[in-house]
Amino acid sequence: MADMDADASVLLARLIRGVRVAALGTLRQGAPLVSMVAILPEPDFSAVCLHVSRLAWHTQDMLADPRVSLSIAELDDGRADPQTLARVALRGEATKLPGEGETFERLKTAWLARFPESAVTFELADFSFWRVVPRDARFVAGLGRTFNLSPESLRRAAI
Amino acid sequence: MADMDADASVLLARLIRGVRVAALGTLRQGAPLVSMVAILPEPDFSAVCLHVSRLAWHTQDMLADPRVSLSIAELDDGRADPQTLARVALRGEATKLPGEGETFERLKTAWLARFPESAVTFELADFSFWRVVPRDARFVAGLGRTFNLSPESLRRAAI
Repeated sequence: MADMDADASVLLARLIRGVRVAALGTLRQGAPLVSMVAILPEPDFSAVCLHVSRLAWHTQDMLADPRVSLSIAELDDGRADPQTLARVALRGEATKLPGEGETFERLKTAWLARFPESAVTFELADFSFWRVVPRDARFVAGLGRTFNLSPESLRRAAI
Repeated sequence: MADMDADASVLLARLIRGVRVAALGTLRQGAPLVSMVAILPEPDFSAVCLHVSRLAWHTQDMLADPRVSLSIAELDDGRADPQTLARVALRGEATKLPGEGETFERLKTAWLARFPESAVTFELADFSFWRVVPRDARFVAGLGRTFNLSPESLRRAAI
């Protein structure tokens, strides 16, 4: 796959680390459903973590079929042409993580640092962490600058 | 389906009319793909229009399977809890519109008023308008305020 220049790589890392809410695509009765979710990327971009309730439609969808897509987009700043906004679409599989252990504690600490108001969700039995592990990514760095990325290219952008 | 109170209805109309870019979920080889797209809602909320290139993955997807979802979300303003951001997820079918005629001219005028920098896309043969007609919608007006809406409820919010 075509690899990114240094500028695009910096832009991608800023996008993935800076954007707090993303659009999650799941399969619901075979059709797409897109929901807004809060996200926490792993520092090495090997996965993007979600903390979701099993009562939510998208969680039920991921339990039924792990194939998901996650669009992380620069916020619309009112510019004349919003097609120049940077965005990356990940495609991959979602896996539910256990509600205890070292990984859970590490993610909980990072999640609460990013989303301090979400403390209450850790008191509720229906919330769990999920990891979305990308199989590939399509990064639009602006008009006409599109890169198809492998998981390895994503990880290189994290360095 | 549960109907909205007046406050929620005003919030929904502001969201659908005010947000310029949305997350489009399509089916790609049976898996979800989420892409950022510019949107133009019909004034009566009977549909949301897109102006897309047939070279784009999401357009190829819609040609292969018309089932889509569209998430229209309030911009993250940095608030402590982004889960309180308003958003609506439409689910429905996408249809390609002809590149001439009264509807085309009306949409072109409205599109250029909203996206003045996109004039060049009307010179390119590969761009077309598409209509996403919602079959239903799920509106999250804030934490714990979720409404399942029919197309009729959506239209009532447009008045």
